[in-house]
Amino acid sequence: MSFFGEKIKLTVFGESHGEAIGAVLYGVPAGFEIDNDEILLQMARRAPGKDKTATSRLEKDFPVIKSGVLNGVTTGAPIAVVIENTNTRSGDYSNLLTTPRPAHSDYTAYVKYGGHNDIRGGGHFSGRLTAPIVFAGALLRQILAKRGIKIAAHIASIGGVSDESFNPVSIDDALLDRLSGESFALIDREREEPMRAAVEAARLDGDSVGGIVECAVTGMPVGVGGPLFDGIEGRIAQAVFGIPAVKGVEFGLGFRCADVRGSENNDAFEYVGGKVVTKTNNAGGVLGGISDGMPIIFRAAFKPTPSIAREQDTVDLSGGSNSKLTVKGRHDPCVVPRAVSVVEAAAAIAVFDLM
Amino acid sequence: MSFFGEKIKLTVFGESHGEAIGAVLYGVPAGFEIDNDEILLQMARRAPGKDKTATSRLEKDFPVIKSGVLNGVTTGAPIAVVIENTNTRSGDYSNLLTTPRPAHSDYTAYVKYGGHNDIRGGGHFSGRLTAPIVFAGALLRQILAKRGIKIAAHIASIGGVSDESFNPVSIDDALLDRLSGESFALIDREREEPMRAAVEAARLDGDSVGGIVECAVTGMPVGVGGPLFDGIEGRIAQAVFGIPAVKGVEFGLGFRCADVRGSENNDAFEYVGGKVVTKTNNAGGVLGGISDGMPIIFRAAFKPTPSIAREQDTVDLSGGSNSKLTVKGRHDPCVVPRAVSVVEAAAAIAVFDLM
Amino acid sequence: MSFFGEKIKLTVFGESHGEAIGAVLYGVPAGFEIDNDEILLQMARRAPGKDKTATSRLEKDFPVIKSGVLNGVTTGAPIAVVIENTNTRSGDYSNLLTTPRPAHSDYTAYVKYGGHNDIRGGGHFSGRLTAPIVFAGALLRQILAKRGIKIAAHIASIGGVSDESFNPVSIDDALLDRLSGESFALIDREREEPMRAAVEAARLDGDSVGGIVECAVTGMPVGVGGPLFDGIEGRIAQAVFGIPAVKGVEFGLGFRCADVRGSENNDAFEYVGGKVVTKTNNAGGVLGGISDGMPIIFRAAFKPTPSIAREQDTVDLSGGSNSKLTVKGRHDPCVVPRAVSVVEAAAAIAVFDLM
Amino acid sequence: MSFFGEKIKLTVFGESHGEAIGAVLYGVPAGFEIDNDEILLQMARRAPGKDKTATSRLEKDFPVIKSGVLNGVTTGAPIAVVIENTNTRSGDYSNLLTTPRPAHSDYTAYVKYGGHNDIRGGGHFSGRLTAPIVFAGALLRQILAKRGIKIAAHIASIGGVSDESFNPVSIDDALLDRLSGESFALIDREREEPMRAAVEAARLDGDSVGGIVECAVTGMPVGVGGPLFDGIEGRIAQAVFGIPAVKGVEFGLGFRCADVRGSENNDAFEYVGGKVVTKTNNAGGVLGGISDGMPIIFRAAFKPTPSIAREQDTVDLSGGSNSKLTVKGRHDPCVVPRAVSVVEAAAAIAVFDLM
Repeated sequence: MSFFGEKIKLTVFGESHGEAIGAVLYGVPAGFEIDNDEILLQMARRAPGKDKTATSRLEKDFPVIKSGVLNGVTTGAPIAVVIENTNTRSGDYSNLLTTPRPAHSDYTAYVKYGGHNDIRGGGHFSGRLTAPIVFAGALLRQILAKRGIKIAAHIASIGGVSDESFNPVSIDDALLDRLSGESFALIDREREEPMRAAVEAARLDGDSVGGIVECAVTGMPVGVGGPLFDGIEGRIAQAVFGIPAVKGVEFGLGFRCADVRGSENNDAFEYVGGKVVTKTNNAGGVLGGISDGMPIIFRAAFKPTPSIAREQDTVDLSGGSNSKLTVKGRHDPCVVPRAVSVVEAAAAIAVFDLM
Repeated sequence: MSFFGEKIKLTVFGESHGEAIGAVLYGVPAGFEIDNDEILLQMARRAPGKDKTATSRLEKDFPVIKSGVLNGVTTGAPIAVVIENTNTRSGDYSNLLTTPRPAHSDYTAYVKYGGHNDIRGGGHFSGRLTAPIVFAGALLRQILAKRGIKIAAHIASIGGVSDESFNPVSIDDALLDRLSGESFALIDREREEPMRAAVEAARLDGDSVGGIVECAVTGMPVGVGGPLFDGIEGRIAQAVFGIPAVKGVEFGLGFRCADVRGSENNDAFEYVGGKVVTKTNNAGGVLGGISDGMPIIFRAAFKPTPSIAREQDTVDLSGGSNSKLTVKGRHDPCVVPRAVSVVEAAAAIAVFDLM
Repeated sequence: MSFFGEKIKLTVFGESHGEAIGAVLYGVPAGFEIDNDEILLQMARRAPGKDKTATSRLEKDFPVIKSGVLNGVTTGAPIAVVIENTNTRSGDYSNLLTTPRPAHSDYTAYVKYGGHNDIRGGGHFSGRLTAPIVFAGALLRQILAKRGIKIAAHIASIGGVSDESFNPVSIDDALLDRLSGESFALIDREREEPMRAAVEAARLDGDSVGGIVECAVTGMPVGVGGPLFDGIEGRIAQAVFGIPAVKGVEFGLGFRCADVRGSENNDAFEYVGGKVVTKTNNAGGVLGGISDGMPIIFRAAFKPTPSIAREQDTVDLSGGSNSKLTVKGRHDPCVVPRAVSVVEAAAAIAVFDLM
Repeated sequence: MSFFGEKIKLTVFGESHGEAIGAVLYGVPAGFEIDNDEILLQMARRAPGKDKTATSRLEKDFPVIKSGVLNGVTTGAPIAVVIENTNTRSGDYSNLLTTPRPAHSDYTAYVKYGGHNDIRGGGHFSGRLTAPIVFAGALLRQILAKRGIKIAAHIASIGGVSDESFNPVSIDDALLDRLSGESFALIDREREEPMRAAVEAARLDGDSVGGIVECAVTGMPVGVGGPLFDGIEGRIAQAVFGIPAVKGVEFGLGFRCADVRGSENNDAFEYVGGKVVTKTNNAGGVLGGISDGMPIIFRAAFKPTPSIAREQDTVDLSGGSNSKLTVKGRHDPCVVPRAVSVVEAAAAIAVFDLM
């Protein structure tokens, strides 16, 4: 459900063109002083409208905290946040209820909810619903940071152009700090131009591109997680697959495991400075579902934005016939740059819930 | 935790060399007549010892149903199954508590449980714990089959040798029936020999190989699943990452999304025989977290068996010093063939829970 | 947590003198047309200020639906409701953080949240938090009513003055309809005057009184609920104990069971009009945790309002010394009349969740 | 479901005359050395056959631990316990499937499970299922005892004969230790004879009696529990209502609240020995759903044993006609003495889960 967690409970609500979106986050300890500017920064990284990779729809996305915080300090009660929807142009979507956009949730939601779903802007399935997720993650990562745990992600690939990968055994705090402040987060800043070029080329073609986000969690204590269905991988994956457009999640070597042998893949242990570490980190920081103290590194694959300017084949559910559709409105040709902060947020939520 | 489900509740218990392993499955409807032979067939597909890709340890793995079934018919009460452990050679593992095997859970479990975990054979983290998961999945897939839902998987890749992929828009029932009876499940049976050769080559090198399992779920009604954290992808991923050695899960195009454009990736709708279908199935049967009626297709990456015959670098936790380790005992050079039925079981559990 | 449900998920948020209170309700089926007037009626029954049994604080308590409802019809997405707090006089409560009011949560919340809880008006522990519970219950009981299930309660006892009890084997729909519209709900309307007299006498003494609410659920199909921890009694009890001031819950004969024999207590079965019924209903409609088709009848005991006008002994947590306290502000000398609609709401939430 | 807990997960399985009953308990910390004798003592307190208040059926009830414990010490893995069923006389119950026993689950289970439930001995609804609950509680209370938390109960009332009540503000450890070792637990041992006489009188009449169990939890730290649906009362009530035959649960003054005023009911705070205590304990140790450091005291009402020797009116579901039934087999005329250890176990499970 639109709901996550065992120890914390995160409920996300709202519809893209409804009155508001928001979230309720339960389980945040009392007495934590929130850095509001940092939360707004994270929300700004997700917000659209900053450049040509993003939709030109201007959202204010200002999160109003309705409960659980008094004088900037958490009270221990559930934290409710409401983001009013403004600047919606609902007329853009009027024909979509019975003419589903390919690769969107229009058709499946229509069947599941018997046509009663709010189709405007994708309704509850809109990427806009990631704003309250980023709010929750931005808050929880502040608490994690106080415990020495840092989370940051970068654009690993867009439209075939790749960034460098994290060094799996040694990630500098300064790098994570830099990435988690960027709106187009890259390890190698030289890759921005060719990535933007790939996005712009797609846009000019009336098309869109997908990509991959790579995320690192450092400072994890050894021993978090558990066996079988309680493993870190499953919990992070559940959170990350909760982000619209994610179609794959892998840890460490991930799918490349199929092409290596055990002698290459196994991460040998050694003592360094009195601490047990691994010489490599193909496991992505997780052994037997439990953190091993190395950076947790995972990658999430995002499909290309489904809303493209070209005419597409679809059906007319009202008439039971085939049809054509040209999606109007303003849409990102690539969601990946904005998705970086959402992936970080999902990681923060899952990691916090595990601790 | 060693626990899965919202509508059903599956609890898995046991340790590799303890008295027994087993599971309790709650939420199975009353009045279903179980096909025991089919359950035993599925468990046999997972069981080791049939050929050189598997450990030579002989397990009887006979599941004794202790409750919830009367005269072969479910009663509606929780179904408890116990598989007694026999033929264990615990002496093989005596030094492992403080000399953790690389790429195993030994080190992380040691820290998490303060050294009180049962290290013998990996304890609760052993791949042997997948036997009760296969039992639960084999039972639930029988109920799903009565509702027209079929599940089968095959070895997509081992040690660099690939099988054909499922045809994403049209999967024959006969193929699924054949695959779900095979112990070395392949779409193209010609690939068995080169795959076995790759495994054998690794074994002769004292090494191991990983691989990929591809799974299809057909006959899904439209409208199962939900938005955000209630999506099908997240729930299946949580179940599949619960299988030891899984390091990646992807749906439809998955990580290849990063290299295609929206116009290629979007699955156009059309009416065929009065039914809405998609012309392609890059979504893997899931839109907005909800089934669209096309086959659900996902892939799971398995790391190479961590237990290899070669000497490896590790640490001596008792002495705080670096050490060497040669893993003794009998181990699969490749778990992938046996993992096929486990992936199917995890899919069955997740899908049943969603419905 | 401030959270209830298995099939539905109800999250309640807010603090008495914070910005707002509210709830998110997930799991409401799509396509249900909400009767807003009926919801407002139920909320008005709970709201204070209508007579001398209630606090003179005027609350507007207007529930603004932020999501999940489009043109008055549910969309299937989570329903978020926000009730802005107005007319708060926070100055009244300034000394309470370290001078806890007896029989309130002040002391326990202070310890649990390290003094960071919002103490104003009881914060998240305020009876005011029952307003969103009534909203959720009022919505869900409309859906239940469409399925033939009716819920109503009455004041069984206040300050030693009792109402008649429900006839356990035969409850007229007209009675339930009447009760669920009353703000001082009584089967025998003649009891209102002596009950109000008891409350007024306590008020004039600077004191308060407790009471009992009896609730009936009719039209339940046979077979809802389950064994052991899944029984109807436990689920309703968990919801009802979630109402502040409830100290006891009993079903059917309840505590009187201790004084009767099996031959008196057992409800004999018989066929009436082709339907199985019981001749008596000492079980309160529940056998083995499962509904038997008879009215579900339970009673909830409410303690006297803890805020009384008299000086009371307490402690000064800042100084570590004993102290005296006179609670200022406006308080109900008896919450029971207003609690009737809250008990109905809790029953509706629990029953809906079980179905 | 047959399932309890948030932090721990307890799953209970089995049917009275099936192959076995048992439980899986997840969430027990590693490294705890179990006192098996103490567990067996608690199970013996619940077991029948010791005197005329109990059924003459002899159960061995020996709990075999299948996992999660190594050399008597918990490993952190789920603890599975299996109790084989022996000495069952299934022939006794053959006509019950369509001739439901009044006040039993026969009718409701028949409808819920479509007649597929195991009716023998009540199946999954049997009081016998409390044996694994006692096992789980007996284990968890040992861990609680190490943290200074003691739990014991006594027979507050049977067939109209009452025991003394706990002194709510001061309960001697020695008393709790004595009670938790008794099979007919009483504060005032002089009450045993008249209670047994009341039971025996009922038995000679072919009848049965109900009663009340009062339970105390001492040593609770301040601050356990939470607001609204997370309160201690609701969680304990859910666990205790999970015990078959419980029809009421109350805390502190409970239903007597209706007859007292706030000035009597409010528990004044004071410092004693530098510690905050209350002068009275009408709250039963819980304020705002959170422990206040005073003993948690609650009472559970048990209905009279439904199986009585007299002929009773019932229905013949196969014929759709009224019928008569004389319940054969061996049955307790009063379950209350045996229920004492079950109530303690339910309290231990709920309290452990809250911490």
